[in-house]
Amino acid sequence: MFLGAAPDQLAAKTAQGIVDWRPDWCLGQMRLSGCKADLGLKDMTIEQAAAAGAETVIVGVANRGGVMDRAWVSPLVEALERGMDLASGLHKRLSDIPELRDMAAKHGRQLADVRHPTRDFAVGSGARRAGKRLLTVGTDCSIGKMYTALAIEKEMKRRGLEADFRATGQTGIFIAGDGVSVDAVVSDFISGAVEWLAPENAPDHWDVIEGQGSLFHASYAGVSLGLLHGAQADALVMCHEPTRTHMRGLPHYRLPDLAHCIETNLAAARLTNPTARCVGISINTAALDAAAAERYLKQTALKFGLPAVDPVRTGVGPIVDALR
Amino acid sequence: MFLGAAPDQLAAKTAQGIVDWRPDWCLGQMRLSGCKADLGLKDMTIEQAAAAGAETVIVGVANRGGVMDRAWVSPLVEALERGMDLASGLHKRLSDIPELRDMAAKHGRQLADVRHPTRDFAVGSGARRAGKRLLTVGTDCSIGKMYTALAIEKEMKRRGLEADFRATGQTGIFIAGDGVSVDAVVSDFISGAVEWLAPENAPDHWDVIEGQGSLFHASYAGVSLGLLHGAQADALVMCHEPTRTHMRGLPHYRLPDLAHCIETNLAAARLTNPTARCVGISINTAALDAAAAERYLKQTALKFGLPAVDPVRTGVGPIVDALR
Repeated sequence: MFLGAAPDQLAAKTAQGIVDWRPDWCLGQMRLSGCKADLGLKDMTIEQAAAAGAETVIVGVANRGGVMDRAWVSPLVEALERGMDLASGLHKRLSDIPELRDMAAKHGRQLADVRHPTRDFAVGSGARRAGKRLLTVGTDCSIGKMYTALAIEKEMKRRGLEADFRATGQTGIFIAGDGVSVDAVVSDFISGAVEWLAPENAPDHWDVIEGQGSLFHASYAGVSLGLLHGAQADALVMCHEPTRTHMRGLPHYRLPDLAHCIETNLAAARLTNPTARCVGISINTAALDAAAAERYLKQTALKFGLPAVDPVRTGVGPIVDALR
Repeated sequence: MFLGAAPDQLAAKTAQGIVDWRPDWCLGQMRLSGCKADLGLKDMTIEQAAAAGAETVIVGVANRGGVMDRAWVSPLVEALERGMDLASGLHKRLSDIPELRDMAAKHGRQLADVRHPTRDFAVGSGARRAGKRLLTVGTDCSIGKMYTALAIEKEMKRRGLEADFRATGQTGIFIAGDGVSVDAVVSDFISGAVEWLAPENAPDHWDVIEGQGSLFHASYAGVSLGLLHGAQADALVMCHEPTRTHMRGLPHYRLPDLAHCIETNLAAARLTNPTARCVGISINTAALDAAAAERYLKQTALKFGLPAVDPVRTGVGPIVDALR
């Protein structure tokens, strides 16, 4: 897991997600000077990683715009030289860096840019399709939408329900091994890409679709709306982090009110699925102590008349209960 | 103006827009068998067009998904052979058609794919910027947003105001000679592209930004929302066609109520510009007779307490009045 000089833990959320959901795959982390993120993995140099049997170096750091830092090139070149493949979820392609492209060609190594769709999509049709779909939405970016979706899929499968997690971002794609990074799709085709990703299915089959961004994020709301329309969700789960003071990356934007955010998402969702409803609220309470977390979840459940859970602290059982 | 076998007049809206706003540039039209559109230009074969001095054949037909019909290849190849350049606003690139690419290379002709951005954009910041901005929005696609914006720019300039039309679609780009086709931008960068297109400016300068799609169009609403947020508009003009029975291309979707559509657009616009307001309604009354059009405009103005105009029938003067 290559973390570069990630300025905080959230900047390493791609790597963190893979470590949390696929721990068996992860051998170590490499951090450059100034890195503020820590995955709890063994710190390794590229040389040590190769010696430990690592097959792939994953660029596991996310940043605004998905750009590539020049300081990353030298260690990544070394990884190729030592026989490892590279994988990245950034907008900027590994294969667009001449040094990496040349070195990969020279050593016969793979550069996997999972964010980039490898197929064309049709324009969304909005036509109703069979099967059930749940979409996680949020008050902000990086707030637990992927975690919540993965936890719901896991809980559904544990109960013997037919369910598939549908990845819409780079981390989810690394974890699921498949998916579409909707923020990298040409904007005319956002909803069409999601219609393709979560197609018609058996009437009692659930697609559990990972949400992206927020309708209230000034940078990314278009992605969120196209995803919401393409998902044609029967069920929305609203994700929230109660201590965040402003929208991720936008210090001058406050988080939306939770009730207003639910209402706005439902109004938009009902364009393509008039029966869409919000079935639960997923709170990331990591910043609260146990008592404060319990209190917050209880108050939220009471206020909205909906299950309010923390996927990590309480599990998502009550949300899956509400779906049956 | 190459129209292919356009199934109706709206399918030729790219060509129609160029003919309406840049009539001096247009020599003739070429229509394939089954074409239902007519620009009122002289019908020409490719051979006749070349003889008449045409320098460029514009693929002036729009369709869902922006694809290229195989039946177009042979006449377009002939155009290249006869010394003309090609230009297109479709998603599918002219340069991706091997016969066209090869023939253009052989004869030293240009293939201009104006829909494809030629630069990278940053993620939108949502930061407030100086200058005034007006955005045309709509109840549906192909409803008069570009016409209204061009008419407002023209009227502003006539009155000596500082104003620039900002093109966000292929037809607007052909007319203005510049712009960004936002539906071809990677979705993470929609609002960032519009922030670039309509940047900070003098306090009393107006950017008149062409809207795209509709927040209520199941295929394209993500584009519309990203554009709305990036525009940071002070003023919205709502565009509508009163006789349309369903959303363009989606027979199972009805048009939104005009009041609800204005309200939803304003709520979204206020995320990045809290003082955004709707300053007028632009109605395409082409399908109504003069008396019915006058009645409809009068009723609409009364109902909303806003200027209601038809850019073709009445001009947009009352909207520009309302801005001062």
